[in-house]
Amino acid sequence: MGAIEDYLKKTQPLVDKEIEKVFPKKIGKKWLEFALDKADFAYDEETITKSAAEPIWEFLNRGGKRWRPALTILSCEAVGGKKELALKMTPLIELVHEGTIMADDLEDNSQTRRGKPCTHLLYGNDIAINDGNLMYFAPLTLLYKNPYKLSEKQVRKIYDLYGKEMIRVSIGQAMDIYWHKGSKTSISEKEYLQMCSYKTGVLARFAAKLGAILGNAKPEQEKALGKFAETIGIAFQIQDDILNLVGEEFQKGKGVGEDIHEGKRTIMALHALQHAGEAEKTRLIEILNSHPASQETINEAIEIIKKNGSIEYAKEKAKTLVKQAWKKLNPVLKESTAKKTLKDFADYLIERKI
Amino acid sequence: MGAIEDYLKKTQPLVDKEIEKVFPKKIGKKWLEFALDKADFAYDEETITKSAAEPIWEFLNRGGKRWRPALTILSCEAVGGKKELALKMTPLIELVHEGTIMADDLEDNSQTRRGKPCTHLLYGNDIAINDGNLMYFAPLTLLYKNPYKLSEKQVRKIYDLYGKEMIRVSIGQAMDIYWHKGSKTSISEKEYLQMCSYKTGVLARFAAKLGAILGNAKPEQEKALGKFAETIGIAFQIQDDILNLVGEEFQKGKGVGEDIHEGKRTIMALHALQHAGEAEKTRLIEILNSHPASQETINEAIEIIKKNGSIEYAKEKAKTLVKQAWKKLNPVLKESTAKKTLKDFADYLIERKI
Repeated sequence: MGAIEDYLKKTQPLVDKEIEKVFPKKIGKKWLEFALDKADFAYDEETITKSAAEPIWEFLNRGGKRWRPALTILSCEAVGGKKELALKMTPLIELVHEGTIMADDLEDNSQTRRGKPCTHLLYGNDIAINDGNLMYFAPLTLLYKNPYKLSEKQVRKIYDLYGKEMIRVSIGQAMDIYWHKGSKTSISEKEYLQMCSYKTGVLARFAAKLGAILGNAKPEQEKALGKFAETIGIAFQIQDDILNLVGEEFQKGKGVGEDIHEGKRTIMALHALQHAGEAEKTRLIEILNSHPASQETINEAIEIIKKNGSIEYAKEKAKTLVKQAWKKLNPVLKESTAKKTLKDFADYLIERKI
Repeated sequence: MGAIEDYLKKTQPLVDKEIEKVFPKKIGKKWLEFALDKADFAYDEETITKSAAEPIWEFLNRGGKRWRPALTILSCEAVGGKKELALKMTPLIELVHEGTIMADDLEDNSQTRRGKPCTHLLYGNDIAINDGNLMYFAPLTLLYKNPYKLSEKQVRKIYDLYGKEMIRVSIGQAMDIYWHKGSKTSISEKEYLQMCSYKTGVLARFAAKLGAILGNAKPEQEKALGKFAETIGIAFQIQDDILNLVGEEFQKGKGVGEDIHEGKRTIMALHALQHAGEAEKTRLIEILNSHPASQETINEAIEIIKKNGSIEYAKEKAKTLVKQAWKKLNPVLKESTAKKTLKDFADYLIERKI
């Protein structure tokens, strides 16, 4: 466990340095002319810095584990590719991810992120939406300017991957939003896992496949790495949901039970709804649909979930999914430090306490 | 004038049919498996339809001129390409455009769009943000699935174009947002035109360049078509701003003077601020920064703008810009019906009353 934390701690500042190359903290003519060509009229660098670079970097500087970039680097290394190249391309995955959570916060009407007020509360909805979008696109300079001389085939594969995964992310989010409006009465576990796969698994898969493409992986390696990463993304989401309900340290972040307040149909809520008696089931639906603000009501829902063994069930589910994906990945990768770290990585994400 | 309106009226339903192929009104397994592969777990088509397809089609069905797709088709034809292929690829430009206006409405906190309540008011902020994003990505199936067998080179060029133009759109919007917060005291006309070029010109350029690429245009044709379209995009925006202040029929839509309410630094506001006396200038800034709701105060600002000849100035500016761009386009295109229509098109967009 400590080893992975160390690994992430070492990787994070390196990733952030690459992000800064792709989207600087201060926007000047140099970046604008590189990314967008010379101005036809006149650039206003100060405005662009204030309206885009500052809010985005305020957000990035709050931290975050940067575990998706780590997946890119490890996947590239595990197929024999160069970690330096993978590192340089990580902004493509991390900026997109950060963009989705900036948007998520606004969509969920969240108050805090990483211990600070959400971007829409600090800078306004307009800036949060627009800068979230900008983060989806800004790293595309890594493809259309191709500064690291990827092959035509690599660029095309990464573009294709980007297109498909971005649609999946939006579709996953569409499902999540619709469900926690309480608009659908019964959701199956498979549907839930599909949503998770698209909402959270997808960017992990994107990260791993990006690394595989950069390392010129064999098709079966790329596929298995993608699937493994997707699965640890799902497991990460499940663990996130668990911590949201019972995490001791979670108070520092989003607030315990915010998912109940948002009415989220997590795998635990679904399991509890399936296994609780009639009265408890009715009460849990009632609470989820009422989007309660009172901690007492939220705790009541958490109790119903705990009582039905749903937390333990979710933990087991996460472990099983990862185990299955590892079984498919293991035989297609030669032994290496990167391979070993990938395995530890999955365990770390499932076991983490924060 | 009538001819262009007829042309657009004929083109619109054809474009919408292509959009429907790319993103259907009802999401079923067929589309999901085509665009996103077979589900690892299970799709919930009903939820995806309700949460994504319905709000998006409710929005698309309100109308809109579809003039950007028309630019794609005409540009392709004008360089000797096939209009059938161009038509099939138009969802790439139109869906992206519609996505930006769904997001804009939320960012500007607008109330109505095309005579109906904005999407965020009908379906909630979460759905409006997410579906706006989905519209940016959904048409990428036209590239990564490549159903119309474009060449490798064409696909790459269109991806590259997409990347760059999407960053430009976000940067243009970032400027516009920051300015109408009143956060910058003096904006030059060149900076304003740059913002316009990025916010509105860019998707017109994208449209024309898309057509040019599909028609295998020569580099100088692609460039001149892009510039011409960008310019008519800017002119369209200027005309939009003019109509917002003095358009007789505008009541049906956004409401007269909403730009004043939003504090927008339009080219007219900038011109008036430059030419008005001290007292009027101070008053106009005061009004723009106060985001007035009262029609009386809004009218006061419009009067200051009118009095300083700023509406006439804006009209002239739009015409001059288009004239200059046409001068560069004219010599690189052979005479053709498409070329003639392109010219008429520009005149139509500048002269339009609604």
